[in-house]
Parts: sequence; structure tokens; C-alpha cells
Amino acid sequence: MVQSRQQLGQIMRSCRRHPDQIVGLVATMGALHAGHLSLVEASASQCDVTVVTIFVNPAQFGPHEDLSRYPQRFQEDLAALSDYPVEIVFAPTQEEMYPPGSSTQVDPPQVAQALEGRFRPNHFQGVATIVLKLFHLIPADISFFGQKDYQQSLVIRHMIRDLDLPMRVVVCPTVRDGDGLAMSSRNSYLSPDERKQALALSQSLKWAAQHAVDGERRSAALVSGMRHLFDEYGVTEIDYIALVDPDTLQEVDRVQGTTLAAVAAHVGKTRLIDNCLIES
Amino acid sequence: MVQSRQQLGQIMRSCRRHPDQIVGLVATMGALHAGHLSLVEASASQCDVTVVTIFVNPAQFGPHEDLSRYPQRFQEDLAALSDYPVEIVFAPTQEEMYPPGSSTQVDPPQVAQALEGRFRPNHFQGVATIVLKLFHLIPADISFFGQKDYQQSLVIRHMIRDLDLPMRVVVCPTVRDGDGLAMSSRNSYLSPDERKQALALSQSLKWAAQHAVDGERRSAALVSGMRHLFDEYGVTEIDYIALVDPDTLQEVDRVQGTTLAAVAAHVGKTRLIDNCLIES
Repeated sequence: MVQSRQQLGQIMRSCRRHPDQIVGLVATMGALHAGHLSLVEASASQCDVTVVTIFVNPAQFGPHEDLSRYPQRFQEDLAALSDYPVEIVFAPTQEEMYPPGSSTQVDPPQVAQALEGRFRPNHFQGVATIVLKLFHLIPADISFFGQKDYQQSLVIRHMIRDLDLPMRVVVCPTVRDGDGLAMSSRNSYLSPDERKQALALSQSLKWAAQHAVDGERRSAALVSGMRHLFDEYGVTEIDYIALVDPDTLQEVDRVQGTTLAAVAAHVGKTRLIDNCLIES
Repeated sequence: MVQSRQQLGQIMRSCRRHPDQIVGLVATMGALHAGHLSLVEASASQCDVTVVTIFVNPAQFGPHEDLSRYPQRFQEDLAALSDYPVEIVFAPTQEEMYPPGSSTQVDPPQVAQALEGRFRPNHFQGVATIVLKLFHLIPADISFFGQKDYQQSLVIRHMIRDLDLPMRVVVCPTVRDGDGLAMSSRNSYLSPDERKQALALSQSLKWAAQHAVDGERRSAALVSGMRHLFDEYGVTEIDYIALVDPDTLQEVDRVQGTTLAAVAAHVGKTRLIDNCLIES
């Protein structure tokens, strides 16, 4: 396990002396679950070297968000990773990643404005900045992200394209519990009752996908049905239920071709997101 | 000469297959003069491969600045470079560097706010963004900049530090004409009379450096003397005459240790800048 950027730099330089080696990067905030581990697995199967980073990035949390209580399970994370062919685990301190005086940031691409951007104003600036820093520290060929954070992967893909980074993104499917709840480190916040309510997100997405396949094209009708399901599950604090173009994240009036259905809601004190691609 | 990012990528990848080769980058907007060529010379002497880029970056010009009349002398530039051991000249089109839909930008470091930042509000955002793109396209070990654009080199050094770029900056001394005028592509705008007036910048810096050496420590007295010299040269439209800390660019009351003296003024329709480090 590596904590300093300097030591990481030495390792990556010697790694890059073998230019045919494909390096994969899985950037995480720790509290690893099966979703993260599916990314590690994807990297291990597609790359010669897999680097996993564990860093709870303060810059992507808003002032009233859950930074202070974000789950930290470092020893369990290392134990979980030891089952996989991971060459390097980089787990820096906050000081290491943001030394005093740091001020340069990434002004993220247009797609950061929609959905999460409306409710977490500086979130993607923080995400884009830390991910760019990690891309510089770990010159990987492929970076692996989960579809659960669809907008995040789109922001990063656009950043890579706009800034000419020599990197490819692979987005892996959302991993779900048996009942459909998308894996998230934040699920650990949920009480047993909230855990049941939280199914509103995945169930409403499933409902919308089915109704779109059955011929309902009108976004308004689909969103209204989804909102009804949230009601039934007792989830009332909804940030958004949106049907959007999967490339621009702009809302669509009608579901045609591939559409992204995305939801964000508060279940108790826990904010959850989920999404699915609807083909029609 | 290379115009496409794709072709450049192929060349750079094959170049990076020799990890012991040191790659130097000289990023320019063309209209090359002896200042630029001194950077090329420095790179050629310190690096195994020298890459020169020529790109007039629209993003670093304000809406009322001189983008449309900025000198373009591409054939002369190539001829000038042919006298030096330059391995790659990258001269992309605007479309190539900013394809439709590009929106990610760099929010530059704190040091971008002072001096030029007060008069050219989005200038360093444009500079930082294009330089970062070039750093990604051309993974050089050393990037060469001129001291004439002191603040630019500081912005880039801070960006490199803050974003963990594996790159070093070398700042080369300002190259001056025999009478002291700092070399600048914009000098070609000057009429013979303006060419004489333009000496206000270098002469006032020289005057301040001399008086600091002679024991004048008070910034106010030095700035006032410099302003008097601008008057004598008939230059009245002064953006700033500043004595600042060379690391933070914050104004200092007294000249102690190393101080940066920096000036910006309009001579006719031409905006010129110059600076010098004062040791006292």
C-alpha cells in the first residue's frame, strides 16, 4: 500500500518502462462493496497492472453533506482487495492530495450542470479535479467507473475528450442487491425500514423501463408513474426523477431510442441515486 | 510538421517507448522572435527531443483584444525553426484543438488573479486550459517558458504542482533588443514613434532596479519614479506598475530580498508587458 505521491511516482515510472503493459485504474472513496469489486475484476481481466485508489475527497462534498460520517473501513477494504490481482493500492492522506496553497481546479464540462449538478453545485468540480490529479499520478490506459454514477462517468469521459487525456473509460454495469437496490457505500446509513423504502429508486426505474418497452413514449406519463411509486414507498423528498438524453443529459419529452432514466432522493438522512438506460 | 492530434499521438507514443529520452516542449503562438528561439535553444541543449507548438489560442484573448490581427507568419516560423534541432512542430487548427462541444476548462491557480488577471479576466483560464491540453498531447519532461511572461510561467508552475503533472518548467531570461525593449510578437504592431515610447517599460524597470540597489526600499517611491518615466516617454495608458512578491504576486510595501517589478501599458493600440526581478 502506497501513501505518498513520490513513492507512487517511482512505481508508476518503472511501470511505464514497459510501454506494452496496459495499466488499469479504479478510483474509489473506499468502503468497498461488490460494485467497486466488479470494477477491480474488470480491470484485472483487461489490464496487466491494476491500481486501486482509496481517497475520500473532501472537495466533492457540499458543506452540509455527509463528509464527516462517510464510512471509512480501510482495513476491510485492504482485506477485500487482497482477493484480487491488484498491484498497487494508493491511499493518500488529505494533506498529501491537497497541500496548503493548492488552488487550481477543473471547471467541469457542460454535462456537469444537469441532474446532480443542480443539487450538488460544486460536486463535479471536486470530482473532476481529483480524478484529473489521479490520472496524472497514475498514467493508466483505462479507467473503470460504475454505471450507478452515470453522470460522473460522462463528466469524466467529456473531461478526457476536452483535455486530450490519453485515457479510455470503461463503464461497468451497476451491481445490485437481490432485491434490486443499487450497491452504494451510503446504503450502510440506512435503517431496516429505510432499506425497504430505498427500493423506490430501483423499482421506479424498473417500472419505467417496462412501460417504455410496452409502448409508453411520453416522459411526463412515465415520470408521473415513477413519482407515484416513490409515494407508495413513502419516499417524499425527491431531488429529481428525470428522463434525459444519455449524451447531453438534457430532458426529453418522448422516450425514443436510448434514454437515461435517473433518480435522486433522500431516504431518511441518506441521499441515494440510481439510473438505468431505457431502450425503446 | 504535424497538424492532427491523432498523428501527434502516434509520434509521441513511439517517442515514449524510449523512457530515457528527455522530451522538451516549447509552446508558442507563432510569430517567432529571438525570445522564442532562445527557448528552442534551451530545449535542444537540455533535451533529446524538442517539440515546438504553434497555435494562436483564441481562448486566451478577451473579446476586445487583438486576436483578429495577431501576427501570423507560419512559413517564416517554419524557416526559423529549421535552423534548430526541432524534432516535431505541432501546428493544429482551431477546430482541431476545440472541436464542437468542448467545454471543460481549467480554473487557474490563485496567482492568476493579480496583475494581468485584473485586466484580462479570462486570459489565464484560456492559457491554463490550452497548456494543459498540450501537456496531455505532448507528455514532455520539461516545458520552456520565457520570463517576459513571468505570471504565465508562475500560473503554469502552480497548475503543474496542484494537478500533479509529471513535468518541470524551465523559465528562460527575457530576450531584449539592443535598446532594452523586451522581444514580443506584438512589437510588430508599433509605429516608429511608438517603438520609441515603448522603451518606457524596460527603462522604468531598469531605473527601479538601480534605485533599489542604491538603497530605495519604499515601493511607493519606486512606483512613483517609474510612473514619472512613463510620463516622460509619453505613455499615459498604464494598466499597472507593481512591485510584488515573486511567489504570490501580492504587492509589497517595501522591496526586500527578491521582488518582482512588473508593468503593463498601452502604447498606441498595442498593449505591452515587461518585468524584472529586483534583488536587494
